Amino acid sequence: MSLNLTRRDLARLITRIENGERGAQEALNALYPHTGRARVIGITGAPGSGKSTLVSEMARAWRLRSGLDQPQVAIVAVDPSSPFSGGAILGDRIRMRDLYGDSGIFIRSMASRGALGGIAAATADVVSALDAYGFEIVLIETVGAGQLEVDVARIAQTVIVVEAPGAGDEVQAVKAGILEIADVIAVNKADREGVAQTISALQSALDIAPANGHHGARAATELASDDGTGWRPPIVKVSALNREGIVELLAAVDTHRDYLVATGEGERRYQQRIESDIKARLRELLLQTAMRRITQIDYQAVLAAVGQRSLHPAEAALKLLDSLHL
Amino acid sequence: MSLNLTRRDLARLITRIENGERGAQEALNALYPHTGRARVIGITGAPGSGKSTLVSEMARAWRLRSGLDQPQVAIVAVDPSSPFSGGAILGDRIRMRDLYGDSGIFIRSMASRGALGGIAAATADVVSALDAYGFEIVLIETVGAGQLEVDVARIAQTVIVVEAPGAGDEVQAVKAGILEIADVIAVNKADREGVAQTISALQSALDIAPANGHHGARAATELASDDGTGWRPPIVKVSALNREGIVELLAAVDTHRDYLVATGEGERRYQQRIESDIKARLRELLLQTAMRRITQIDYQAVLAAVGQRSLHPAEAALKLLDSLHL
Repeated sequence: MSLNLTRRDLARLITRIENGERGAQEALNALYPHTGRARVIGITGAPGSGKSTLVSEMARAWRLRSGLDQPQVAIVAVDPSSPFSGGAILGDRIRMRDLYGDSGIFIRSMASRGALGGIAAATADVVSALDAYGFEIVLIETVGAGQLEVDVARIAQTVIVVEAPGAGDEVQAVKAGILEIADVIAVNKADREGVAQTISALQSALDIAPANGHHGARAATELASDDGTGWRPPIVKVSALNREGIVELLAAVDTHRDYLVATGEGERRYQQRIESDIKARLRELLLQTAMRRITQIDYQAVLAAVGQRSLHPAEAALKLLDSLHL
Repeated sequence: MSLNLTRRDLARLITRIENGERGAQEALNALYPHTGRARVIGITGAPGSGKSTLVSEMARAWRLRSGLDQPQVAIVAVDPSSPFSGGAILGDRIRMRDLYGDSGIFIRSMASRGALGGIAAATADVVSALDAYGFEIVLIETVGAGQLEVDVARIAQTVIVVEAPGAGDEVQAVKAGILEIADVIAVNKADREGVAQTISALQSALDIAPANGHHGARAATELASDDGTGWRPPIVKVSALNREGIVELLAAVDTHRDYLVATGEGERRYQQRIESDIKARLRELLLQTAMRRITQIDYQAVLAAVGQRSLHPAEAALKLLDSLHL
């Protein structure tokens, strides 16, 4: 059961996962039986909602929490705009300075640089490595609001959507449609004007969601937070900068964990996570295998026909599939 | 060459594309030779930047433009948070009221409901349908900031990133890392405070981008705006609500179109678009074919082993691939 992994080994492994190096898989295979102990929490929300500060404060609060044995906390900041570099890396450097000195907190930014199965698979692998290493809490922070957040929902056990009172009357999470993946909603910058409106807009959004047909869509995608067994995402007011409401936020995350265990929803999500992870990786393997076996002649002919608009891309894909004689 | 497609046929076809109905492909095959005439423009940016209003105003301005024969304009609002419903649909209804009465503008929200190859492929198909129908201008609006925006960049000929002066000092597009896909930058709400800072922050971001190593990343991903042939995204101040700067924005889009034609960059992008479109569809076809041929016994055994953490998901995918004896 001994892993004998140093911090430096861990950091190197993460880099190899990011880069999609084949050698990393061997290490991941060896680690995998040691996973399953970490609590994995996703934090997402529109840019400007103050996610980074909140994540730092959550990590700090977890470290200081009484009654617990000072859990080791890892923060993974994932940049969905990869393969480009983005704001996450800079933001990370700023935060590192702040949390520097506490060896119980590990911070890492990552971007996808060709990992098999995309950034979601790479993130899952990094989380596994941190889990096996012994981090009790793994916080996944994502920048932006899009498909990646849905994929992160599959990796995390609990998803926190961060909202901040805006200049206007818009609730960003509602506008970006990411409220549906929320298990807990944190309204950050709660010292600012407009908090009451933001909370009331969020409450309304939660109220009308099922009547709005979301319920059916949720059941179909099996990502439901409100799955009929009675979980309604609590709204927690926080001010990360003033360190207010953080303890209450962690308590809400604990309550959600208890809910996952008590209802079996946690196990159900775990099974879904495995299935979608395997399929994402199989999809990439199949394409790689296919691209090696498709002849250049077939490939170029199909590209030329689509380029002249005499062949639709979907038909082109079918032709290539046929040429493989599966 | 006659298509004999009514507006109603078109709307129905789009619904069938969204739903991933097989029958839609036949219609798409018939349409495809008639595509290639529309100008396809992507508009993206963080929630709250006022994209929807700007898109409406652009459509209106294109319709009113002198020297042109009142082009037919289509707006496709894509919600990346699909398979959930989201803000786009509501926003669309609000806007429709406003543009109602001009039959030269067609507005459609779409979410992915199981389209083969995901929402990017479905969007490409909808754009093809609109193109074949005769829309001269197709505006693709995306809500949110994530991987989908990169995929939209591949569909559109010109990508406009919308930014608005924020309450804080953050430039959302920089933070979300979507500036790299910009061909034109629109700073909306230009009547607000903080416009000068926003523009200067954007200029700085554009200045440091190549020195920052973005250049390499861009070349590698072949999505470059600044690709060494001399295109630097112009920054255009607009106020969609006050209908200011819209004509200048359209002029910037025209200039980018001329650049694409003059340098051959447009043709290069078109080839890349085809290739990534075909591959996305092939990937899904391969997975479907594989899942039909993988036995339930093999599949369940692999799921169970991963569930017990004795097998890594990547190894599980390899095992399934092996079981296919390709």
